[in-house]
Amino acid sequence: MKICQVERPLVSTNRIAGFEHKHLLVVRDGSSRQVAVDSVGCVPGDWVICVGSSAAREAAGSKEYPSDLTIVGIIDHWPPESAGDDGADRPRPKST
Amino acid sequence: MKICQVERPLVSTNRIAGFEHKHLLVVRDGSSRQVAVDSVGCVPGDWVICVGSSAAREAAGSKEYPSDLTIVGIIDHWPPESAGDDGADRPRPKST
Amino acid sequence: MKICQVERPLVSTNRIAGFEHKHLLVVRDGSSRQVAVDSVGCVPGDWVICVGSSAAREAAGSKEYPSDLTIVGIIDHWPPESAGDDGADRPRPKST
Amino acid sequence: MKICQVERPLVSTNRIAGFEHKHLLVVRDGSSRQVAVDSVGCVPGDWVICVGSSAAREAAGSKEYPSDLTIVGIIDHWPPESAGDDGADRPRPKST
Amino acid sequence: MKICQVERPLVSTNRIAGFEHKHLLVVRDGSSRQVAVDSVGCVPGDWVICVGSSAAREAAGSKEYPSDLTIVGIIDHWPPESAGDDGADRPRPKST
Repeated sequence: MKICQVERPLVSTNRIAGFEHKHLLVVRDGSSRQVAVDSVGCVPGDWVICVGSSAAREAAGSKEYPSDLTIVGIIDHWPPESAGDDGADRPRPKST
Repeated sequence: MKICQVERPLVSTNRIAGFEHKHLLVVRDGSSRQVAVDSVGCVPGDWVICVGSSAAREAAGSKEYPSDLTIVGIIDHWPPESAGDDGADRPRPKST
Repeated sequence: MKICQVERPLVSTNRIAGFEHKHLLVVRDGSSRQVAVDSVGCVPGDWVICVGSSAAREAAGSKEYPSDLTIVGIIDHWPPESAGDDGADRPRPKST
Repeated sequence: MKICQVERPLVSTNRIAGFEHKHLLVVRDGSSRQVAVDSVGCVPGDWVICVGSSAAREAAGSKEYPSDLTIVGIIDHWPPESAGDDGADRPRPKST
Repeated sequence: MKICQVERPLVSTNRIAGFEHKHLLVVRDGSSRQVAVDSVGCVPGDWVICVGSSAAREAAGSKEYPSDLTIVGIIDHWPPESAGDDGADRPRPKST
């Protein structure tokens, strides 16, 4: 799964019926932007876990849902400023 | 899903029967070009949402449709000139 | 789908039975080379549409066919020399 | 499958129910970080094999599990310092 | 499918049961290394065709096999030293 940051909502009035009325969000994965379906209820600025591939469909609610990128979790703590190094200077989350 | 801009139609007379008579469009994703199946009715210049992976098949109409990239929505407002930055200088669409 | 150019046939005598006797072709996608299954009957030099992901299997003939890249159409006109720009200096194909 | 190194656990309290209570780990694949589901019981520092695509779902326990990257094995010996060359100066593991 | 060169066997004693006792091999795709399941019986140095995506599962023996990269054929002749050019100075294999 990818680690992305939510940037903003995306409005697409003319879209296929299969999307239903789920929210679409623009997320950033490093320097690239993609569109993800929100399954957890997140807001701009959140660091989230995005699942792709065929798993994105079921994660969005059903096997027929036409998503290839679905937000499946909000990360409790994420050190974006150390994303390019090993984050050794920051407290690390412990496994639960 | 990817954010792409529609560039032009693509004509392929000799193609497999599975494509039926759906329109194929050349879309740009940053500097790369791909071919997408049109499921919403868009025109060159439109900024669109393209779904890939296995979801592209059902988004194109059926589980057997041989697409790996399908246009599933037209984006209402997209700031292409700020695609490389955070777009802070432009009005942002609000979620519906 | 990707836009590729057919380069040459590929001979693999020792291969899994699942490939049957379909032709395998080396195709170029920009600077990278991949191997695709031919479903339309193309020759070296042709510009073709290649489908990947799970759609490549059915496009090659059946859901069990072990392909992740299948040639599904020959492009009628393609401007390879303008592939890196917007192709504005060449006649563009019109949608049918 | 990718060769990754486990970096740390990832805590996501607000996540979809489909993840159950399996551990999520941040893994490094070269310079990029991703999140993987742990199916073998590994610890930070381990070099592991990660499977993606649709195979990640079944590798995580069931066809419905919403994973696109699952850790499926711990590598017995891996020469990370020679990851960029041919590793010729190190003893190589023999096939079993 | 990708064109890769087999580098060495990979030993992973602690791995999920789903892999059974098939051989795992480290393969090179250009400058990156991945792990592939061997379905044809190849040795280090061989140039091989690797299938990814969901096709990798069935190519490895069954729909449940947890592979996302499976070696499906050994290439009879491959000009690795011309992999970056058009290989025009070498005899080319003819289609069968």
